[in-house]
Order: sequence, then C-alpha cells, then structure tokens
Amino acid sequence: MSASTTSAGPDFSRFSCPVPLRDYPEVILGHGGGGMLSRELIDHVFLPAFHNPLLDRLGDSTVLELDGLMGAAAAGCRLAFSTDSYVVRPLFFPGGSIGDLAVNGTVNDLAMSGARPLVLSAGFIIEEGFPIAQLAAVAERMAAAARRAGVSIVTGDTKVVERGHGDGCYINTSGLGVVPAHVAIGREPMRDGDVVLVSGTIGEHGMAIMSVRDGLEFESRIESDTAPLHGLVAAMLAACSEIRVLRDPTRGGVATSLNEMVAHSACGIEIEEAAVPVSLQVASACEILGLDPLHVANEGRLLAVVPAEAAVAVLDAMRRHEHGTGATQIGRVVADHPGMVAGRTALGGRRVLPMPLGEQLPRIC
Amino acid sequence: MSASTTSAGPDFSRFSCPVPLRDYPEVILGHGGGGMLSRELIDHVFLPAFHNPLLDRLGDSTVLELDGLMGAAAAGCRLAFSTDSYVVRPLFFPGGSIGDLAVNGTVNDLAMSGARPLVLSAGFIIEEGFPIAQLAAVAERMAAAARRAGVSIVTGDTKVVERGHGDGCYINTSGLGVVPAHVAIGREPMRDGDVVLVSGTIGEHGMAIMSVRDGLEFESRIESDTAPLHGLVAAMLAACSEIRVLRDPTRGGVATSLNEMVAHSACGIEIEEAAVPVSLQVASACEILGLDPLHVANEGRLLAVVPAEAAVAVLDAMRRHEHGTGATQIGRVVADHPGMVAGRTALGGRRVLPMPLGEQLPRIC
Repeated sequence: MSASTTSAGPDFSRFSCPVPLRDYPEVILGHGGGGMLSRELIDHVFLPAFHNPLLDRLGDSTVLELDGLMGAAAAGCRLAFSTDSYVVRPLFFPGGSIGDLAVNGTVNDLAMSGARPLVLSAGFIIEEGFPIAQLAAVAERMAAAARRAGVSIVTGDTKVVERGHGDGCYINTSGLGVVPAHVAIGREPMRDGDVVLVSGTIGEHGMAIMSVRDGLEFESRIESDTAPLHGLVAAMLAACSEIRVLRDPTRGGVATSLNEMVAHSACGIEIEEAAVPVSLQVASACEILGLDPLHVANEGRLLAVVPAEAAVAVLDAMRRHEHGTGATQIGRVVADHPGMVAGRTALGGRRVLPMPLGEQLPRIC
Repeated sequence: MSASTTSAGPDFSRFSCPVPLRDYPEVILGHGGGGMLSRELIDHVFLPAFHNPLLDRLGDSTVLELDGLMGAAAAGCRLAFSTDSYVVRPLFFPGGSIGDLAVNGTVNDLAMSGARPLVLSAGFIIEEGFPIAQLAAVAERMAAAARRAGVSIVTGDTKVVERGHGDGCYINTSGLGVVPAHVAIGREPMRDGDVVLVSGTIGEHGMAIMSVRDGLEFESRIESDTAPLHGLVAAMLAACSEIRVLRDPTRGGVATSLNEMVAHSACGIEIEEAAVPVSLQVASACEILGLDPLHVANEGRLLAVVPAEAAVAVLDAMRRHEHGTGATQIGRVVADHPGMVAGRTALGGRRVLPMPLGEQLPRIC
C-alpha cells in the first residue's frame, strides 16, 4: 500500500475517502451496532452536517482546551466531554442494569481521554405505563454506580412517550471530566513495536446479556463486567503518561476498537489470538452460539497501546488495580499493514480481523 | 399562611414537604409534561436517589464552580451544564423542527444561567426503518441552528431500536457554556416590588405544534418561536447584572415557570393578565381549543424578574434585541402570597394560577 516518495505528483499512499454508504434507504438495526454501518452513518450523515475539528476526531470523548474557549483565566485546563444513550434490553441483567451502564459507560468514555470524571447529566425517555417502582429501582442503581465512580448527577430531564413508542426506559448520560495536566494520551502516534494490552478477560458483558435475552436464554453464570475504569487509567498514567491510545471495547467488541485505533494510523496491529484472555464460560457460550469473542461487547475492559519500553511498568500497575488483575499483552503495533488488524491464530496462520458491519445483537448497551 | 413569630416552638410558616406522589403505579404521559406530575416524579424518584446540592437547585442548567472541581488553576471560572431530550412530534412543524429545538432548547437552558453556550453533545435514538434522507434533513436543521447560535456539536452517539420501540428519531443534547464573571443571576432573592418581564408574545410554539398534530389539525399561520436566547440574555445582563431569576417557559408554559420561580421563595407573583402579550392568532386558536395561553409551551421566549429600578433599562435592552422586540412587563413580585402565583383578570378579579398537572399535549418538545 505504500507509494514511492520519489515520484512526482500526488501521494496516494495516505489517500482515503469514506466507505460508500450502503444502499439502505432506511436506518437498520446494524446502524446502531458501533461497526462499519455506524461509521457510514457518521461519515455520510453526521460529519457532513456538524463537522468541526473536535468532532472530527471521533474519540470516545472530546477534550476541550478551556483557555481557547474561556480565555487566559482557564489556561491549561482541559475538560473531557462525552455523551451516550443507553437502550439495553433487558433493563436488569446478570451483573448489572441499564443504570450501571448509564453511569459506567459515560465515565469510561471520559476515562479513555485520561480524565477524572466529575459530573453527569441524566436524560430519561420513559414509555407510558412503565412501573414507577421499576423507575425507582433503575434510579437507585444509577445512584449506587455514581457513588462507586465518585461522580455526581447534577442536571437531568424526563420525557414520557406514548405506549408503543419506547421500551420502558431509555437513558442518556453526558459527562464532564478534568484531564490532569500531565496526561499526554495520543500526543505521539502509534509506532512499530508498541504493544497492545487488554485489562482482563473479554466478552462477559455481551454474553451476560445474551444469556437472558428473549429467545436466546441459556444457563450460565456469566456476569456483565460493567465497572468504572478511571481509577485503572489513572494508575496506568502514573506508570506512563504517554499512552498512545486507550479505548473501551463496548459495541462491536475488541475487533471494532482495534480497527478504530488503526483507522487513520500509519501502522497496523497484529494480535496473538491465543493470548487474548477469554473465560471458559464465555468461550463455551460463544462456541455454542457461533460467535467470535473478539466481536462481543465489554463494559468494564479497556485496550491500551503503550510504548514497548513502558509495557512492563504499565502491566504491573494494571494488575495491582482491582479492575486490571487480568491485564495482559495481546499483540503489537506493526508497520507492514497500515490501517489493518491481523490475528495470528493458534495454528500459526494469519487472518484479517475486519471491522464488523454491526453488533451481532442489537441493544447490548 | 404566615405563622406568628412570637410564639415558642417550631415555626411552620416555611415548612414544606413534597406533594404526595399521586396514586399512579405507572408512568403516565403527564409525568413528562413539566408540571406537577413531573415535579412529583423528581421529588419522589430522582432527588431521593441522586440528591446533591447542585441537582437539588433544579434550575434549567447547573452552574459548576470550576475552582472547586479543578483547583486553583480554574479560579473564578464557572461553567453551565444542561441536558434535554427532544421527542417532539411531528419532527417538522411550522417554524421549526426537532433539530432546531434540540439546539435552541439546550442553548436556552444554558442562557437562563447567564452562560455563553460553547459546545453541545448530540445523542440520537433512532427507530429501525427511519428514512436516512429524513435523518440527514434533521441533522442539517440541527447544524444550521448550531451555526446561528454560535455553538459546535463536538461529541455524539447513535443508537438504533427495533421498529415499534421508538418514533422515528429522539434526540438528546447536553450543553456546556461559560458564565462570565460579572453575571450575578440569583445572587439576591426576589423581593416585594421586583418586576416580571416577558420577552414577547406567548404560546406560538405550542399552538404551531397543535396545528399540525394528528387529529387536531387546523388552518393557521402560527409558527414556532424557537430561537436561541443567549444573545438577548447577554444584552439584558449588560443593562443589569443582578437579574433575580430567568426562565424559559417551555413545557407547561408561563404559568409553570412562574410557579417554579416562587416555589421556594418568600414572595409570590401577581400577573396582570391583560398585560400578557398574546397574538390574535394564538388567542383565537386557544379559544377554539379551550386552552389558556399561559399554559401553552414556548421555545424562544423568556421570563425575567428584575429589580424595579432596573426595569426600564432591561426592557429597553430587550426591545433593541431581535428576540426581545415584544418585551413587556406583565406583573410584579408581591409579599402577600408567598409561593403562589395570582392573576389579576381584565375584570379586576384575582385568581390563583396553579402549576398545571402536566402539559395539555404530550411531546411538545
């Protein structure tokens, strides 16, 4: 894919244009799956309308330089800002609830910018007929998750829609966090030889939801991994402030996040598939359902790319943190297939791990 | 309602407790109407779960003192933070669209704190089957409204739900704005003799929606008043930085906002009903439908309470601004019925203007 740099004329090696919008005149469930279809909707509908330098970065959260916005009084202050809507079904599932996700999911989007989360907003869209006792239970779970994460819910809104135009309760949370001055996530791009880390076993959240989803139920003791990750990130940053990139592999799983990492990079990523930690229960459930754990959603795990020389220190810091005890290296950054993620299989072969079209199961978060 | 202050024992004159939760085991449409039922849900479900000093103030937006959150580097910086979900039906209506409301509504919530809006988030919950062309049209209207308001949409999220679990497109926006150092809205409470101002004719938004709502359609040229109000607020603050309170009378209309203003006040408000500006078209439509314009939603109007000595200067500043040309005084703050709003009718009588139970029409915004 690399072009000669000695020839005259345009250099097409870094040329890219959005994948064409597939021939769907209507939104389909896959457009909400976080994969290729979501990306197409963003590239063809939202970015052309809203484009600005902050949005165009498409991180899990946006970092605002306050001195640019508020003047010299705020010099050096950086705020992370993020939003997510939660439409998970069912509302309560093994290991968590929509309330836990609504807090931890937005906290984690902020944490991926290295931010210390401060405050959340909460917007409820409730379907007429939803039991008030259940709404109170959801709110109580949100409140408990907020206490655990050390954030306050400081502003909110409630809308009610007619029966048949919602599904019990949808929640949007937006969050604000402060990015400490020393944090330099993304200051340097990924480089050949950097290592790829994961904070623990993958696939628990997605399989926990599937185990209780109508029509799919199966016996299992798999619980969602939902957890706030900013403490883990702070510990990692104390070991290495120059983390190249952080992502929490939610919708679309690890394969989607890895593809997002390399999408505009001059490098590729190679994963040792046998090194990816998957619990026996998740592996068995995936086997039965014909799923690849690399495509299954997580809500309490993160992926990090760090310089090779910092890998030991960062892994050590992760393993000492309650949400990183299972941290391990799963791959490395390579120069030879820029923009692409490859998996080295247990048998020694290599396969491309493409961005999935969408999520296998709608409404996973 | 006032108790003797000479007697021993507890003083019950300022005693209050939440209105009891009405005997609804399920959420009904009125719980989303912004009136008494919404208030009950907040008092009995959300505040007990989430309570904290910032949320408990229940303003249109929450003002965060950054030095408390970020340390001395941010001393004196105040940010306003707000969230709203938009479920208006139909998505396009005379004078506006869900995209205009999603920008202007949140911009106005920030403006009511005296903030200069900076950035918005946008979270879409889309129903499977929604035409992509229509989504693009909504996004384009949002983008145009954002340009007019001078804000950027810097972070977003898209979820898709199955057919029959949404209604085309719901949008949540959250916003951040900076509150200039000189702004002192609410520093002093309302006082006997303060005056109540409105920025223009009321009821346009609600009647524009009703004129195109299934089953209610009527011939009319009423257009929604949706507009960003932060420029008007800045002009008002330049004339008087010590505005007592600002509210934009959206769901539940002027009567609801006035009741919110006096809810925890030692004063009451008296409105001269004949002084409230209502266009002939809105008045006629309300007459036909049996509605009180004081209960109809607005999306580009504000109510302000200002010290009597500043009234002329503030009104003058308002009338010179494009969104305040119809500004006028509609009433005053009184000492004799604390916590209550009264209307002096054209015939000289007085009536209580209570907080409505809900909005007459669901999904007005």
